[in-house]
Amino acid sequence: MLQSQFFAKTKKETPKEAQAISHQYLVRADFVEQTISGVYRFLPLGFRVLKNIENIIREEMVKLGAQEVYLPALQDKKLWTESGRWKTFDPPLFKLKDRHQKEMALGSTHEEEMVDIVRKRINSYQDLPFSLFQIQSKFRNEMRSTGGLLRTREFWMKDLYSFHATFEDLTNFYQKVKKSYFSIFKRCGLNVFCVEAVSGTIGGKISNEFMMVSEVGEDKILICKKCGWAANIEKTGQIKKCPQCQNSLEEKKAIEVGHIFQLGTEYSSKMGANFTTRDGKKKPIIMGCYGIGVPRLMATIVEVHHDQKGIIWPKEVAPFDIHLIPIITNKKEKKIAEKIYLDLQNSGFKVLYDDREDKSTGEKFADCDLIGIPIRIIISQKTLKQNCLELKERAKKEPVLVKIKELSKFLK
Amino acid sequence: MLQSQFFAKTKKETPKEAQAISHQYLVRADFVEQTISGVYRFLPLGFRVLKNIENIIREEMVKLGAQEVYLPALQDKKLWTESGRWKTFDPPLFKLKDRHQKEMALGSTHEEEMVDIVRKRINSYQDLPFSLFQIQSKFRNEMRSTGGLLRTREFWMKDLYSFHATFEDLTNFYQKVKKSYFSIFKRCGLNVFCVEAVSGTIGGKISNEFMMVSEVGEDKILICKKCGWAANIEKTGQIKKCPQCQNSLEEKKAIEVGHIFQLGTEYSSKMGANFTTRDGKKKPIIMGCYGIGVPRLMATIVEVHHDQKGIIWPKEVAPFDIHLIPIITNKKEKKIAEKIYLDLQNSGFKVLYDDREDKSTGEKFADCDLIGIPIRIIISQKTLKQNCLELKERAKKEPVLVKIKELSKFLK
Repeated sequence: MLQSQFFAKTKKETPKEAQAISHQYLVRADFVEQTISGVYRFLPLGFRVLKNIENIIREEMVKLGAQEVYLPALQDKKLWTESGRWKTFDPPLFKLKDRHQKEMALGSTHEEEMVDIVRKRINSYQDLPFSLFQIQSKFRNEMRSTGGLLRTREFWMKDLYSFHATFEDLTNFYQKVKKSYFSIFKRCGLNVFCVEAVSGTIGGKISNEFMMVSEVGEDKILICKKCGWAANIEKTGQIKKCPQCQNSLEEKKAIEVGHIFQLGTEYSSKMGANFTTRDGKKKPIIMGCYGIGVPRLMATIVEVHHDQKGIIWPKEVAPFDIHLIPIITNKKEKKIAEKIYLDLQNSGFKVLYDDREDKSTGEKFADCDLIGIPIRIIISQKTLKQNCLELKERAKKEPVLVKIKELSKFLK
Repeated sequence: MLQSQFFAKTKKETPKEAQAISHQYLVRADFVEQTISGVYRFLPLGFRVLKNIENIIREEMVKLGAQEVYLPALQDKKLWTESGRWKTFDPPLFKLKDRHQKEMALGSTHEEEMVDIVRKRINSYQDLPFSLFQIQSKFRNEMRSTGGLLRTREFWMKDLYSFHATFEDLTNFYQKVKKSYFSIFKRCGLNVFCVEAVSGTIGGKISNEFMMVSEVGEDKILICKKCGWAANIEKTGQIKKCPQCQNSLEEKKAIEVGHIFQLGTEYSSKMGANFTTRDGKKKPIIMGCYGIGVPRLMATIVEVHHDQKGIIWPKEVAPFDIHLIPIITNKKEKKIAEKIYLDLQNSGFKVLYDDREDKSTGEKFADCDLIGIPIRIIISQKTLKQNCLELKERAKKEPVLVKIKELSKFLK
């Protein structure tokens, strides 16, 4: 992609309301833009990252054997009344009426929708287990939305729901999802803790959160370094010793990047989603649900991977693979640079080529550091004299000179 | 995918409210399910088709050089007041208030959002032209929603917006989009007409619709067989002769599957989206916008491609490539069938393998015809005796016997 034609305008000023570093950098580098409080536009750079994260999540969901669906945002009040959450869901539902005065909610989660789908189709234990997921917009009527993408009112969420005949089967699947979540966060460059958590208005008795330690986190977690036990302080209260090994605990602030729930029969019993067991009895279906907020994950990656100059995207989520910056003075050099650009693209790399003529070299370097593409390649008269180019990983301090011929070796 | 584990339950009964054949088949085959009037869930089969159509559209948009973004559904009343459409948009906007009583609309289209993005970033003729698109949910507060997916209140839409310095440039791009639209519809198995149309509340003077002739269409179009001229009757009124060649006109019913608009400066002048020309003058940016409703396109494909037994999906949008039905009596045959299933998957085909034990062969064939996967393969004792399998294209009447060894030749 030619940068002169790419729709992104970096800014030097930090937005007033932006306190979190992820908020500052994502707005300054033109990945996202706020419209109303807690509502964001994803511009081409932001969309690319969102899509990369979506693809990682989808791959891991498919590995779990989950099947993808797409459920509407407009939800029937009737379903929320059946579950008893029309008035109690926190933060409150966005509610609206159509032109016939029919009341609806904008989906903040989809347990009710999923149970309705399943109760119409599942009869027997032979139909179980299975799991369904989707990746789409959720709406939450938050009181205050601060922290940029860390807490928003409309956001992409991956929500997975599983359906089982026994608690044992739920527990087994729950463990698989835990592993799957660790893979997702690892691929996004995050080493997270899995902690015991409070289930809140989603419900169920057992739930776990995936926590990334960070100064801007809104949660306090307790970690036992000896036995690995960890919990949200909301769950345990202010305790000093590990309930498993009596060791002392460390308290840290963290961002919740995922939350999984053993719902049990909470929804199925209220909404009449039953199945017939092998010996002919009717029982409510046993459920689990598993969420990841995609924009919050994106912001968390930036909180963890940045320096004083800008973002440092992990490879798998980066908007481009290579930022190619030619510093050229004549046509011959330009031709060489353009050939390298084409060769890299033909080798399957996503390349942003800084062909802007109205920017100084200094401005180009500053934009490059701010945007945070993993590899920067500079081609200049100086490097070309040695048949080389200068390659610098965004995460490293020093560049290396690489023979043009040998470039492919360095990019493996 | 093993059909015993695939989340789809076909129904024998036609839903009462379903008049359009696409509505009947898509519900009976469990592609979609209505929740509230005009609001649909996409179940795993439906999601697969939706995604295939999305991918075709995305590929064609990228060929046009358009860049993808994702804009929120929650939109600021302020922007709609600026454009003057807060009260006039038809069908009316879904409106709602947040907990602070701030008024918002659910996006039924994104001209206002796009102009706001562009006016903040574009200064000079050198920044033009460019185009942005997205594929996401739109909300329209329709009075009545009938016809299944042909007219809904929440639906995926691809909306593309282009920005130009001159009308000439807009016209050139507009012609390119026309070609791109013909490619999209062709790949979806539709031979459409491009007709002159009324612009309605989207605005602009020139607009064209892409029309698929069908009995269930809501529009009447006039076609001149001699010179190729065509128009929506809403645009021309009841005329009898072609305005270009005076030939007589044919009247047909049609479904509108795409609508493109030369907006001109309709929005940019009202909302102050200006650029500086080469000679230093300030002018409003010239715009075009281009829409395709994805679920309606899906339903139109079914209206065109079906028979009395069910759907006949065109190859590129089909939920699977091959429906493999083993009619087997012993372990040896089962092993052969499973090997073919694996081989086909390893060759890159998406295969639905009907391993259901509680269904008769008759029921399996009926489901197969209803779901409409392009190729059916039957493996039975009879075919295996000849080292063969039976291959039948859904669109053809007669099956052919194919040597197992030679299967790959037939599937090219």
